[in-house]
Amino acid sequence: MVDAGQGTSSLEDAELAEIDAWWRAANYLAVGQIYLLDNPLLERGLVPEDIKPRLLGHWGTSPGLNLVYAHLNRLIRRRDVNAIFLAGPGHGGPAAVANAYLEGTYSELYPRVGFDKDGMKELFRQFSFPGGIPSHVAPETPGSIHEGGELGYVLSHAYGAAMDNPDLVVAAVVGDGEFETGPLAASWHSNKFLNPVTDGAVLPILHLNGYKIANPTVPARIHREELESLLRGYGHEVLTVEGDDPADVHRQMAAAMDRAYGTIAEIWRAAREDGDVERRPWPMILMVTPKGWTGPKVVDGLPVEGTWRAHQVPLSGTRDNDEHRAQLEEWMRSYRAEELFGADGVLVEELQRLAPTGTRRMSANPHANGGLLTKPLRLPDFRSRAVEVTAPGASIHEPTRVLGEYLVDVVRDNPTNFRIFGPDETASNRLDPVYAVTDKVFAGNIVDTDEHLARSGRVVEILSEHTCQGWVEGYTLTGRHGLFSCYEAFIHLVDSMFNQHAKWLKTTRDIAWRPQVPSLNYLLSSHVWRQDHNGFSHQDPGFIDHVVNKRAEVVRVYLPPDANTLLSTMQHCLESRHYVNVVVSGKQPSFDWLTGEEADLHCARGAGIWEFASNDEGDPEVVLACAGDVPTLEVLAAVKILREALPDLRIRVVNVVDLMRLQDETEHPHGMTHADYDNLFGTDVPVIFAYHGYPWLIHRLTYRRANNQHLHVRGYKEEGTTTTPFDMVMMNDMDRFHLVMDVIDRTPSLGSRAASLRQEMVDTRRRARQWTREHGDDLPEVRDWVWTPEGEDPTRGRSPSVTAAATTSADF
Amino acid sequence: MVDAGQGTSSLEDAELAEIDAWWRAANYLAVGQIYLLDNPLLERGLVPEDIKPRLLGHWGTSPGLNLVYAHLNRLIRRRDVNAIFLAGPGHGGPAAVANAYLEGTYSELYPRVGFDKDGMKELFRQFSFPGGIPSHVAPETPGSIHEGGELGYVLSHAYGAAMDNPDLVVAAVVGDGEFETGPLAASWHSNKFLNPVTDGAVLPILHLNGYKIANPTVPARIHREELESLLRGYGHEVLTVEGDDPADVHRQMAAAMDRAYGTIAEIWRAAREDGDVERRPWPMILMVTPKGWTGPKVVDGLPVEGTWRAHQVPLSGTRDNDEHRAQLEEWMRSYRAEELFGADGVLVEELQRLAPTGTRRMSANPHANGGLLTKPLRLPDFRSRAVEVTAPGASIHEPTRVLGEYLVDVVRDNPTNFRIFGPDETASNRLDPVYAVTDKVFAGNIVDTDEHLARSGRVVEILSEHTCQGWVEGYTLTGRHGLFSCYEAFIHLVDSMFNQHAKWLKTTRDIAWRPQVPSLNYLLSSHVWRQDHNGFSHQDPGFIDHVVNKRAEVVRVYLPPDANTLLSTMQHCLESRHYVNVVVSGKQPSFDWLTGEEADLHCARGAGIWEFASNDEGDPEVVLACAGDVPTLEVLAAVKILREALPDLRIRVVNVVDLMRLQDETEHPHGMTHADYDNLFGTDVPVIFAYHGYPWLIHRLTYRRANNQHLHVRGYKEEGTTTTPFDMVMMNDMDRFHLVMDVIDRTPSLGSRAASLRQEMVDTRRRARQWTREHGDDLPEVRDWVWTPEGEDPTRGRSPSVTAAATTSADF
Repeated sequence: MVDAGQGTSSLEDAELAEIDAWWRAANYLAVGQIYLLDNPLLERGLVPEDIKPRLLGHWGTSPGLNLVYAHLNRLIRRRDVNAIFLAGPGHGGPAAVANAYLEGTYSELYPRVGFDKDGMKELFRQFSFPGGIPSHVAPETPGSIHEGGELGYVLSHAYGAAMDNPDLVVAAVVGDGEFETGPLAASWHSNKFLNPVTDGAVLPILHLNGYKIANPTVPARIHREELESLLRGYGHEVLTVEGDDPADVHRQMAAAMDRAYGTIAEIWRAAREDGDVERRPWPMILMVTPKGWTGPKVVDGLPVEGTWRAHQVPLSGTRDNDEHRAQLEEWMRSYRAEELFGADGVLVEELQRLAPTGTRRMSANPHANGGLLTKPLRLPDFRSRAVEVTAPGASIHEPTRVLGEYLVDVVRDNPTNFRIFGPDETASNRLDPVYAVTDKVFAGNIVDTDEHLARSGRVVEILSEHTCQGWVEGYTLTGRHGLFSCYEAFIHLVDSMFNQHAKWLKTTRDIAWRPQVPSLNYLLSSHVWRQDHNGFSHQDPGFIDHVVNKRAEVVRVYLPPDANTLLSTMQHCLESRHYVNVVVSGKQPSFDWLTGEEADLHCARGAGIWEFASNDEGDPEVVLACAGDVPTLEVLAAVKILREALPDLRIRVVNVVDLMRLQDETEHPHGMTHADYDNLFGTDVPVIFAYHGYPWLIHRLTYRRANNQHLHVRGYKEEGTTTTPFDMVMMNDMDRFHLVMDVIDRTPSLGSRAASLRQEMVDTRRRARQWTREHGDDLPEVRDWVWTPEGEDPTRGRSPSVTAAATTSADF
Repeated sequence: MVDAGQGTSSLEDAELAEIDAWWRAANYLAVGQIYLLDNPLLERGLVPEDIKPRLLGHWGTSPGLNLVYAHLNRLIRRRDVNAIFLAGPGHGGPAAVANAYLEGTYSELYPRVGFDKDGMKELFRQFSFPGGIPSHVAPETPGSIHEGGELGYVLSHAYGAAMDNPDLVVAAVVGDGEFETGPLAASWHSNKFLNPVTDGAVLPILHLNGYKIANPTVPARIHREELESLLRGYGHEVLTVEGDDPADVHRQMAAAMDRAYGTIAEIWRAAREDGDVERRPWPMILMVTPKGWTGPKVVDGLPVEGTWRAHQVPLSGTRDNDEHRAQLEEWMRSYRAEELFGADGVLVEELQRLAPTGTRRMSANPHANGGLLTKPLRLPDFRSRAVEVTAPGASIHEPTRVLGEYLVDVVRDNPTNFRIFGPDETASNRLDPVYAVTDKVFAGNIVDTDEHLARSGRVVEILSEHTCQGWVEGYTLTGRHGLFSCYEAFIHLVDSMFNQHAKWLKTTRDIAWRPQVPSLNYLLSSHVWRQDHNGFSHQDPGFIDHVVNKRAEVVRVYLPPDANTLLSTMQHCLESRHYVNVVVSGKQPSFDWLTGEEADLHCARGAGIWEFASNDEGDPEVVLACAGDVPTLEVLAAVKILREALPDLRIRVVNVVDLMRLQDETEHPHGMTHADYDNLFGTDVPVIFAYHGYPWLIHRLTYRRANNQHLHVRGYKEEGTTTTPFDMVMMNDMDRFHLVMDVIDRTPSLGSRAASLRQEMVDTRRRARQWTREHGDDLPEVRDWVWTPEGEDPTRGRSPSVTAAATTSADF
């Protein structure tokens, strides 16, 4: 344990009194928000009508948050620190709001909440009140990029914010409840990915107030040396502040803050002036103070302060119970508001001076309102990196590798505001061309045999999807651009984090003072159809289903069928703002279908007829639709069989890149009108739809469409194991042969013409399954299949423009 | 650091040679599985045809797993230890399979894979081969309860297995990649929830082989003292085994195992004989050996052993590349198979003797095949705990509190094979009646003011949904029964863990030697409609959508509308096997609708007409359907308005408890036939369906139904904030007034009769909104609403059988 007081300036009594006064003011405002409708300055005794009918909010964490905030302000003023504040215990909304109000920011952004008595009354009334503001540190709270409603993400958000902000200190309060969560536990190691030259610093403050809702916390109930051992193991110097005497704690905290910032400044200086970038322990503060400190000690005979009972509203009966109300009044009067606010309710001058000024106020720091700082990426036209496509299916590329080449330009041209995040999968997902222009950043030991690992770099990899997600959220919420590349199945790990981010984006769309931030872009590769080698546990395309439950205004889903459409899609996503973009693309060698120009047009439309594969002459007898790269391949292979065997059958091929086009325009901004949809899919012909994911999603998106009774969807129906790629599609009845059978079964007009073809398909499937089980590989006619443009040499498909050889060993 | 060698028996040279031979045999079999189709004993030089066409599998972790397994076997034999083996790096399927084969278990369970040369050939061929076995430690692998496909859960699974198995040692290998994940990081603290008297032990073995797919691991690249500090902080004594000389490492490992078990045995003894249950550091082993140890050192000029390149298949070109194939042969011959297997391929006698016998073999330990040990719970008939219901809506209870009373019996009558798991929410979710008969188990410090916290108890709480989920999986997979109680919104944290468990259950249904295990039961409370106080971040009913993507055979979703239906549902779930049951129920005071007998019948049917609310006389003009407690309330309130204003309108009320009834019987085992569905919902009348979650799920489940064009669903459409309960339903247009409007809008036959009612509804909604914003509470006529049975006193609804007062302060 390091004594936080040693070797640093001590807090003078006068300053201590000031800090304490700020703290009391913030505590007073926090309590007022939870309880009061009226009588904000307690000009008279509290009466029932002064009390809210429903008491909502969390007191327990608030005094701790207020204490940290007050001392950060002191540091900011003394050292002109550029800092933002993240409240892991975001339930303590009253604290964050109180400080923003004391700093004046609140009234600037919300003029209806003035900096006077009326304003204070409104400040109190609106809290957790219908039509008012939420109870947590929500998007509505000035200075926040982190709600803390769902626990576990404060450190990863903080580190995301600190990256590429070399002068920023991100103060992150970690609740000791949150401390128990997995995502938080992993994110301590973020400090191994910080570059002391080009990144800012994170100052974690672990608030050990000892209790959760109904239990003590684990870190508060292990031996202190065990906890400190753990924190040192996480790579920190631990500065402990502990007590329940305010003056004593103020002195400790001031010293801890001074020392922590001193260490941060010295790490920065050494790295930036001396070139010493070796990782050393970053400071953190361990703050041990009572839960609900300064609140009621005993209520109804039970201890409250310093227990879990202080978690939410310590006095629950204040409207009807006179004793509770008297206790509330005593509690509020203990803060001596008359010393803090004038009779007009305005914060006294001496305290106003304690707030930093302008954008140094943490509630007004633009880094916590990233849209203010957002600059567009310098993006090349994707067509400059498009692969040459002489004819559909005439060449083969690995789409994500082609994207990697495009990202070379993006990385090079945006050296300080674009990063690629991933759980050790950037190379596996074949974005490794970027290593031509950057490295993976790593502050741990680096040895000679390591590749592309360096003290700085645009690629950030840790085997924690949670940490990656937190980083990219923190990075984009502070106005920079990011790409999160992940295996498709395991992106479900961050389902709940995505939820929270989508909710944040949805809410902030209606907050005028928050300009839009860059989108959060997912590239999901190593997808369900090509996890044949890793087996069932790696096969799950359901993240799309999860995403489309969130508000249509903020979610976009793309399934580019080849390399050029992937480029077009990704350029669009990187240009976009305030969305969550989900892009699913394969990494395996696969056919190119569209040229750059065609891809541009097709992606702009989002869905369209593929003329080169269609022979419907505007009047199809059957529509074969596809969304996703493997479904597109299988559909085209089926079409080839059908057109050879049944040349008179009028087939239309529709490819869907932008999945939300399938909804109607009242459901999603990208939705097609019914007229457009009917033009594309028809109203009374069978549609056989091969879809990348769970088939019922297509039914859900199209249930309002005229032809929904004619729609027959194939997709992943949760069948899989370790096998071959083609066996995967066969197991799920999405293979070309089955699609042909589907067409025949749903096109009665074909009559007996098709019966023998159907039997052939049945036989071929049996043969394919047999071959695979005997040879451990796919049927040669499947493996070597090419889409033969009419009049072309059928063997040419494999030869030109192959960027990488197909491997016999599937990777990873 | 503790020197693992000190003070314990050393490994004799003879025994060392034997252990090393076992290790070589296992390594040989692992390599053979990855590469060979034929020539298993290398009786001739390898030719291309001996090599599989697609090389799948993960070599890198396999030698480490084999080493641990060999030494655990030594320990088991020496001390008659009852142990199971969990491979966190479950990609190392070849290792787990190899050891099960060497122990003889494999051939017993899979006679086609005999214990001889032909068997070995089949063992090799089937691995990662179509129609064979998966590449990971899958359900097909004897001795496994943990696949390790998705990383992070090995320790929580291990602790779940150890609970209430007082003599069991669960050896859990943690990969250093997995070490970086959040769920794993949190789960170390599981050791604060172990009771040394009644629980077994977990022996974590952190395998620091240094690399992931493409990167070094974080724990391998921080200072060793930092890592050890971290591990001690997690509450462990660290026994380090490090090296790359096999003999040296064998000696260290034998000593570490001896010492670790000695410490475990002493903790058990002290607790059980001396009553000393204070937590002390549990042993763990830190094993530092090269990745891909004993494999190729250099391939194509690049280092492989001891780098990330050894992760999967170190020699990828062995079929076509003669040099690679020669290297493979050299590698395999380095294990000297001729010393290990006879010419007939049978493991030599001396090595066979190294395997423990019978169920002491980790591959045959029944704890790893929990269905063998599963005993039904002793369950009271729920009707004994049913609340009295004199008439629908005549009384009020908190459903989960009533369930809590039922669980009192369950806990009391099943003292060693039932547990309740939760993230600090058991009391918040109002299951706290159980504290009358049990406590929360906690091995941390306990202080006087703590309540219901003790060294033993049936309730296990940590603020990590991941850890809770891992525990309940480990507990049920070893044949015991569990209930996981969680806030609805945050269960999304374990979406991906649910995925993996559902896949495990699906796969094991087809494995004859794995009898069924108890279901995994979720109770989701504090649900979307009553998180009005916590706000938007706490509102998410989408877990149901996520769950129903998994195979119908293993998922069940229930939405009991009141206390007695909740009891009936939960009894059914606790009796069931091999499902994931999702039960969503409110905790707030709410009306009782059905008696115990009625609930029994209704839940057995899963969906049915509520006659007491219907007046359709078998020929409805409109159907109001509901699923979920709040939707049921709003539907009944709407029905009351409709029946009073439009007494001639023939209304049918359908309540759905078992959501999967909505699908047809070809889609889900619980699905209704079309005839039954049509009988219930009609084919051509409008159906207004109020649903608990996202409304489109109902469309998805019913898109095949005849009346799907007449179905109009209301539900949560992702609108929310901190507000009142009724404002929540209004924000999402699911309120009673809007449902009345929906009925009017879809029943043109009502004509002008209904126009004024509709306008009244519009006005009432406006008034309700206004009232709420002014008073901070719901409209009194909504708050005080009662369902009035005909001829009854309309005031009686509130008075009888109230188990808890409605609180003005919403909790938590």
